[in-house]
Amino acid sequence: MEIAANNPSLKSWVEVPENSDFPIQNLPFGIFKEGGAQRAGVAIGDKVLDLAVLQSQGLFDGLGLPDGIFDKEVLNDFLKLGKATGRVVRNRISELLQEGNDELQNHYALGSILLDQSKVKMCMPVQIGDYTDFYSSEQHAYNVGCMFRDPDNALMPNWKHIPVGYHGRASSIIESGVPIHRPKGQQKPSDDEPPVFGPCKLMDFELETAFITCGGNDLGDSITTAEAEDYIFGMVLFNDWSARDIQKWEYVPLGPFLAKNFASCISPWIVTLDALEPFRIAGPKQEPEVLPYLKYEGNKHFDIDLEVAIQPEGSEEKVVGNSNFKYMYWNMAQQLAHHTVNGCNIKTGDMYGSGTISGPDSSQFGSMLEISWKGTKPVKMPDGSERKFIQDGDTVIMRGHAKQNGVRIGFGEVATKVLPAK
Amino acid sequence: MEIAANNPSLKSWVEVPENSDFPIQNLPFGIFKEGGAQRAGVAIGDKVLDLAVLQSQGLFDGLGLPDGIFDKEVLNDFLKLGKATGRVVRNRISELLQEGNDELQNHYALGSILLDQSKVKMCMPVQIGDYTDFYSSEQHAYNVGCMFRDPDNALMPNWKHIPVGYHGRASSIIESGVPIHRPKGQQKPSDDEPPVFGPCKLMDFELETAFITCGGNDLGDSITTAEAEDYIFGMVLFNDWSARDIQKWEYVPLGPFLAKNFASCISPWIVTLDALEPFRIAGPKQEPEVLPYLKYEGNKHFDIDLEVAIQPEGSEEKVVGNSNFKYMYWNMAQQLAHHTVNGCNIKTGDMYGSGTISGPDSSQFGSMLEISWKGTKPVKMPDGSERKFIQDGDTVIMRGHAKQNGVRIGFGEVATKVLPAK
Repeated sequence: MEIAANNPSLKSWVEVPENSDFPIQNLPFGIFKEGGAQRAGVAIGDKVLDLAVLQSQGLFDGLGLPDGIFDKEVLNDFLKLGKATGRVVRNRISELLQEGNDELQNHYALGSILLDQSKVKMCMPVQIGDYTDFYSSEQHAYNVGCMFRDPDNALMPNWKHIPVGYHGRASSIIESGVPIHRPKGQQKPSDDEPPVFGPCKLMDFELETAFITCGGNDLGDSITTAEAEDYIFGMVLFNDWSARDIQKWEYVPLGPFLAKNFASCISPWIVTLDALEPFRIAGPKQEPEVLPYLKYEGNKHFDIDLEVAIQPEGSEEKVVGNSNFKYMYWNMAQQLAHHTVNGCNIKTGDMYGSGTISGPDSSQFGSMLEISWKGTKPVKMPDGSERKFIQDGDTVIMRGHAKQNGVRIGFGEVATKVLPAK
Repeated sequence: MEIAANNPSLKSWVEVPENSDFPIQNLPFGIFKEGGAQRAGVAIGDKVLDLAVLQSQGLFDGLGLPDGIFDKEVLNDFLKLGKATGRVVRNRISELLQEGNDELQNHYALGSILLDQSKVKMCMPVQIGDYTDFYSSEQHAYNVGCMFRDPDNALMPNWKHIPVGYHGRASSIIESGVPIHRPKGQQKPSDDEPPVFGPCKLMDFELETAFITCGGNDLGDSITTAEAEDYIFGMVLFNDWSARDIQKWEYVPLGPFLAKNFASCISPWIVTLDALEPFRIAGPKQEPEVLPYLKYEGNKHFDIDLEVAIQPEGSEEKVVGNSNFKYMYWNMAQQLAHHTVNGCNIKTGDMYGSGTISGPDSSQFGSMLEISWKGTKPVKMPDGSERKFIQDGDTVIMRGHAKQNGVRIGFGEVATKVLPAK
């Protein structure tokens, strides 16, 4: 698909630092706050473009947008307009920011239109309706199976037939930068002793991405793999915090619950699927053959580098995992087709996590559970300390970007500090 | 706790048929539609009291309610005002409806204030934020354990330590009266054959109640068992539809997903916890002793009769299960304390299902899985047909009420017809 705003030769009159995640080819949408109310913006270099002001100044006239569509606390109403409208708006923003265009560049109110990212507060971009987490990286599922079952039978029998997923908690998904407290809960340190209650001892992250939907199906209808991407507006980075000791004791038979729902954290900019269009690649061969409703045509996987770092309090960070979104076995279109094949309805603003994304090499693992192999291989930090799991005071930082032909489409970061249990 | 509106000697000038679920001591809140927009109402006998009109006529003056609080599509904003405000409003409505009070009885606009329930459409009472389903009836957990594991080890090791719960799908929770389609999905009829795709063959209901929250805690904070009921506005009947064949193949290791999220159905009237106050009873002795955060004082279980009936198309219904909410091992206060003990935040409008409620006798089971004991004991219908699970054209009807001193506090019903797979 040709999208005008993706043209790699485009340059902006806004200065974009080298290796910025936000060149003119990206233009991710977010919600920010500066002075007054929350409103919608687009990132360009180190700046935020205030879309609410742009619209009030008439710069989106003729696009058929409802009045004040960007002057909202969340992007849901904008996303409801659909992906085609999102594309038109992104192309128009691209036009306004291109070298040679002076509609904005010489605008009398430019100072109130183009703000420093460092001076605004980024907020949750959407009000999340439902949140589902998948489990779609084969290496991650294999690693977990090796540790808790047996390497010869690491994958569950259903894993290559079903994009396994489960429902999670929407209320506790928060934006990057908000610190969280270590959760408390029941653990069972010994098989022969009753459970104990206290702060989680095996606090972990999960390196994931998540996609956000626009529009949806009626209850009882389904979305095919061919249609699915029409409902995927864009993606964010997703840290699915996990309390491994709580998880171990609670999760049979109905799945993880308190081990997960104390917090999940996202990067604040929604990178559109449109901006990621040039980074499509083929997925892995799926063997055994999947059922017809899970088959798909074309490239529906994406080549996006991901990394996760730990920064101990008062020290430098250390990257502990380098993975890539291409290591997904099941792609987003298959996930959404599966989710709706029973008639389950999706809605604008839902969030769908990928599951921990681990690559085949041990340097590519996406959780401390895997990186430290259940705590048997501690990781050395720059300050000399060791990590098996996450300690109080640690900040966990995830970053991601795709790069090709000199164009870097980045996600910014999701960075979250862990405070002691309350 | 003394609540004026609960006085068993109160009588209303509105005619209340014998055995009505909605005497003046109940006054459940709901959202209805008649003519124009959706708005809030209260049930009395066979009538609905239009709260939006009542407020506009000044009949709530002095209660400090925001303008138009009942003139909304859902009750969330009203519930956000908190339980104390709900109590004040319910007491005022009780006053207006009592024999001898003529503020409404002789009101010039009574015809637009008091409408026939049969002439209005009941809608979803709240916009649900998050939905959690618990698994809190011991007999149900035991029955499932007997069928799928072993009677000597029927309960999982964690079951008597944790009010086990899992997250469900909020988007597909719908009100009574809306038919649903049989879901399709993957099943694995034989261990040696690959999975197949098609309409669910083992369609089941689950007889549950659900509570709806008002207000909530900040992320990172917890709610104690002593505080929990301050956040529980009221309850509804809850049919947690389940596709047993889909469930069996998908649920290990992350829990039920497509087997549940195609639909859950609720009764439209929220019966306040206040109205249920007289029906508190002691819960079962919890042995082994629970951890301190799960201990509670006072009676936090409720004596509420529940029944579930199947009505084949064009035939009479047959009651197939009679249960009671008192058969819960874990009460709602324990569920909420557990849910938040890790800092997970609850919000106004969340829904929390009890899990299938089964009593100790086989006539008291709350799902076809148990009633037909995995299909080995079919149930005879009035039309001569048999049921192991639910067939296309069947309507499943759940009802519930508490009764004492001649006062019957009922829930109405949740009735849902199953249409063939699309």
